[in-house]
Amino acid sequence: MLKIGVDAMGGDYAPEAAVKGAVMALDAIGPDSRIVLFGDEARVRAVLAGEGCPADRFDIVATTEVIEMGDHPAKAFQAKADSSITVGFGYLAKGAIDGFASAGSTGAMMVGSMYAVKPIEGVIRPTISSIIPTVTGHPALLLDVGLNVDCKPEVLAQYGLIGSIYAEAVLGIRKPRVAVLNIGEEETKGNTQSKATYELLKADDRIDFVGNVEASYLFTGKVADVVVCDGFVGNTVLKMAEGLYHINKKLGGGNAFWDAMNYENVGGTPVLGVNAPVVIGHGISSPKAIRSMILSAERCITADLTAKLQRAFKN
Amino acid sequence: MLKIGVDAMGGDYAPEAAVKGAVMALDAIGPDSRIVLFGDEARVRAVLAGEGCPADRFDIVATTEVIEMGDHPAKAFQAKADSSITVGFGYLAKGAIDGFASAGSTGAMMVGSMYAVKPIEGVIRPTISSIIPTVTGHPALLLDVGLNVDCKPEVLAQYGLIGSIYAEAVLGIRKPRVAVLNIGEEETKGNTQSKATYELLKADDRIDFVGNVEASYLFTGKVADVVVCDGFVGNTVLKMAEGLYHINKKLGGGNAFWDAMNYENVGGTPVLGVNAPVVIGHGISSPKAIRSMILSAERCITADLTAKLQRAFKN
Repeated sequence: MLKIGVDAMGGDYAPEAAVKGAVMALDAIGPDSRIVLFGDEARVRAVLAGEGCPADRFDIVATTEVIEMGDHPAKAFQAKADSSITVGFGYLAKGAIDGFASAGSTGAMMVGSMYAVKPIEGVIRPTISSIIPTVTGHPALLLDVGLNVDCKPEVLAQYGLIGSIYAEAVLGIRKPRVAVLNIGEEETKGNTQSKATYELLKADDRIDFVGNVEASYLFTGKVADVVVCDGFVGNTVLKMAEGLYHINKKLGGGNAFWDAMNYENVGGTPVLGVNAPVVIGHGISSPKAIRSMILSAERCITADLTAKLQRAFKN
Repeated sequence: MLKIGVDAMGGDYAPEAAVKGAVMALDAIGPDSRIVLFGDEARVRAVLAGEGCPADRFDIVATTEVIEMGDHPAKAFQAKADSSITVGFGYLAKGAIDGFASAGSTGAMMVGSMYAVKPIEGVIRPTISSIIPTVTGHPALLLDVGLNVDCKPEVLAQYGLIGSIYAEAVLGIRKPRVAVLNIGEEETKGNTQSKATYELLKADDRIDFVGNVEASYLFTGKVADVVVCDGFVGNTVLKMAEGLYHINKKLGGGNAFWDAMNYENVGGTPVLGVNAPVVIGHGISSPKAIRSMILSAERCITADLTAKLQRAFKN
């Protein structure tokens, strides 16, 4: 039995959206998977009843507190010991659940990842990544997308390996092509950071390093499956895509490519490099987005991603 | 009489595209403006004849060499003393033309800007900027877009002032709103560089500093008219927009907003912070793009941009 922990109180529209999303995920998860909801039991049961869904389709872990978006993440994680996120990470740390997903406070999710689950030995800094659509129809992985905004090349080089393992294990891409996001194709192009990262990745024979990729080719899928950049650049790319998606939608210039940009279909950002699957959803998650987030957590678990990452960094 | 110098040999399709673009610009330039073409006189005259355009509509300065894309910019600028770019900058430096525009070697254009025209006193590092479209219909200015990929905060802060002067003088935006491109709106967000830049711009009362802008709002035009970032990030934003423009075009998801992304309508990147108007066009410039580049150079000249920048940095 595989247990996917879900924060029923996480997200701007929780618990309604979170619980509805969990109900929507029931059809898609594996027969051996079970969703464990952490949250206000009465409210969770009320939403389930409203959806006409028997409560015994889920495990429910009753919690009494909620870490709010305005709370200081580290302080609240400790002070609100009975919050859905703190309790969820307690379950995850002791192995009572196999992964944990929340659309709640990103800061608190990171605190839990770093202090309850802890970085994998050998990983300098864990990272958050995002799946980006490409015109080929195949997804690509961009990392880091906002956790580490001042990155040393050694850190970025590790993201090449982490991203490669994730892309192969979870996205099913065989021998993923890894590239550095850069402002030119040539080896000598870039800033101090990207040039040094290039050298380190080039020397890493555990990955299929294909060199630099310019942002113009990010969404073509032609150059790379895994694209490494620092969190400032990655976050900017992601936010720009989001902004253009909304502009396109408003202007009626939609198509399948842009639909794939919709965060609802992506379903959260995995925290990579910690000792358990953790997925952070978008604060404004709709039920559909919560469903995708839960499925994304399930894929990380079934792919045995954590063990694969741990092995890779053992040397 | 205002003289706009144009490199007839610059760009992948020169001299045809360059000269045709110059012909196309004739209708749009002011009655007191005259285009000075630098290049192979016989070939220039042949294109003009092919277009049915009398050669006396232009001044032609005959040159015998061309700096190729593969040439080392600094070496070629010196060694090819009779190249269209080197001669053009000679004319610009001695005031025989009022501005110079080329879609040729960006590197050689920068060498000319830095060594023939020279940075304005007080400017730490000149910059290249790009006009980006917004859904409001008004343009916004992004800088730097690729010249300075490792920027100190002091350099970025100057770009706020330079961009503000450009936006007001050339784009006609009164009291332009200046912002730092950042990964969060709050003052405390960002990387080391963006946080330090924020503090410097906040203290600069010569500009209307509005704080941080996230990439999601870059193209909405809601937050800022002038957006400051380092050349790595700015170049990435620009290339990403370019890539998405092409994807959109291919997928048929076009609309007026995306059409405005088309570089052909933008017409080149002004080099800001040097002692004369210099505009660098895209290597793949079509005649229409060359026309836009020439008009953009003309606007810099008529706006008296250089004098305004010089005055601002006098203190």
